[in-house]
Amino acid sequence: MSLNKQVKIILIETTNAGNIGSALRAMKTMNFTSLCLVNPRDFPSEAVETMAANAKDLIEHIEVAKNLDEALEDINFVVGTSSRTRKVPWPNEPLHKISPRIIKEINNKKNIAILFGREDRGLTNDELQRCNLHVNIPANSDYPVLNLAMAVQVVCYQLFIDNSLNSQNIKSEYWDVPMAETNHVQRLINHFIEVAEQLEVFNKGNPRQIGARIKRMFTRIGLDEMEVNFMRGFLAAVEKKLKDK
Amino acid sequence: MSLNKQVKIILIETTNAGNIGSALRAMKTMNFTSLCLVNPRDFPSEAVETMAANAKDLIEHIEVAKNLDEALEDINFVVGTSSRTRKVPWPNEPLHKISPRIIKEINNKKNIAILFGREDRGLTNDELQRCNLHVNIPANSDYPVLNLAMAVQVVCYQLFIDNSLNSQNIKSEYWDVPMAETNHVQRLINHFIEVAEQLEVFNKGNPRQIGARIKRMFTRIGLDEMEVNFMRGFLAAVEKKLKDK
Repeated sequence: MSLNKQVKIILIETTNAGNIGSALRAMKTMNFTSLCLVNPRDFPSEAVETMAANAKDLIEHIEVAKNLDEALEDINFVVGTSSRTRKVPWPNEPLHKISPRIIKEINNKKNIAILFGREDRGLTNDELQRCNLHVNIPANSDYPVLNLAMAVQVVCYQLFIDNSLNSQNIKSEYWDVPMAETNHVQRLINHFIEVAEQLEVFNKGNPRQIGARIKRMFTRIGLDEMEVNFMRGFLAAVEKKLKDK
Repeated sequence: MSLNKQVKIILIETTNAGNIGSALRAMKTMNFTSLCLVNPRDFPSEAVETMAANAKDLIEHIEVAKNLDEALEDINFVVGTSSRTRKVPWPNEPLHKISPRIIKEINNKKNIAILFGREDRGLTNDELQRCNLHVNIPANSDYPVLNLAMAVQVVCYQLFIDNSLNSQNIKSEYWDVPMAETNHVQRLINHFIEVAEQLEVFNKGNPRQIGARIKRMFTRIGLDEMEVNFMRGFLAAVEKKLKDK
């Protein structure tokens, strides 16, 4: 189990380069080293170096991705930070409660991504729907607005604590098939929705926001590779029947 | 018990005014309102306002003290943040372990001060010896150097969590649809397997024990009623197409 190898912190469309540097320093203090920036607004920038302080050595390892798909390559389990309540609620747990679960996923050899959204408006619905679970940082309900790098610091701190607590009695959960990559799950979801559309099951008195609900169902389950392959085969067979008709 | 009335955050000889603003914001996100500056190097300053963001309202309540004695007026219990080991060892506990003790002191109607030292060299020995206990933030032993405001954020977060746990205030998870009855899930699984058989997806090089795997997939997800109904509708639509053929 390894925080620095298996956990990738992803900052999406960060506006303020200083926040990137501060986040990097925050990460290093808690033993995290892998930072990915999706479409950053101001990078590279001197402000990153200034705020990174003695975490400067990590700057050259920062990964820059054009989009979230690229950033999630090789990732099995995606955590989105979000304080807002959504129309279609996702599993959303307070950090201190869900952190041991995340550590468990690390012990189970999953590669984890933790997504942090834009300074002003967080993650989009699409981004949130790529997540296996949402985590909120418990905070003052009148002003729960942590600075971006502060949020990174708190999340990394909580994981560091729980990782230390659990490193004595690690018992990884046995699973017989490797977990699916999140991008493969995404393609399954898209495929499923396509087939559902062809079957016209969306129209007949089906519930609101069914697309989001389907995404929620398939992302929160944590599918393994064999399940994804089987479901893809199932959908392909349905499609074939529809075409043969 | 009241975080905002009984806990005073004290920053000693802070050099960077931006850190004061950031600390104030960090405090407010965790429901702390009482900040005292001992002999600050750069206050008042515009940087405080800038970094305080929507915690600006607290700036006018900041107390400025000439020395620590003045700052500790009316305080019953003093906590010093320190990562260094001292020649004369003090009770020094990691934050997550000692935080419940601090909450207990708050419940016992004590007024608490939490001291944070200078950006470059922390608290002096004299200051540390004013403390009832020392607390360290668990961190990467190669680089345990949190930014000052980050340290304030983490300490306030941990106290906020333990205070909430203590008052059993943590809200339970919200979900918009009732969970499905297990028997309904079972019928969905049977239905799914029937359809898969009609589609003949079991035969063509499909993996071992696929029936068991499908059951495992659908049971571990924890489906809600709407998801079960949708999936049943989906399967019914597939069956209809197969019959129409």
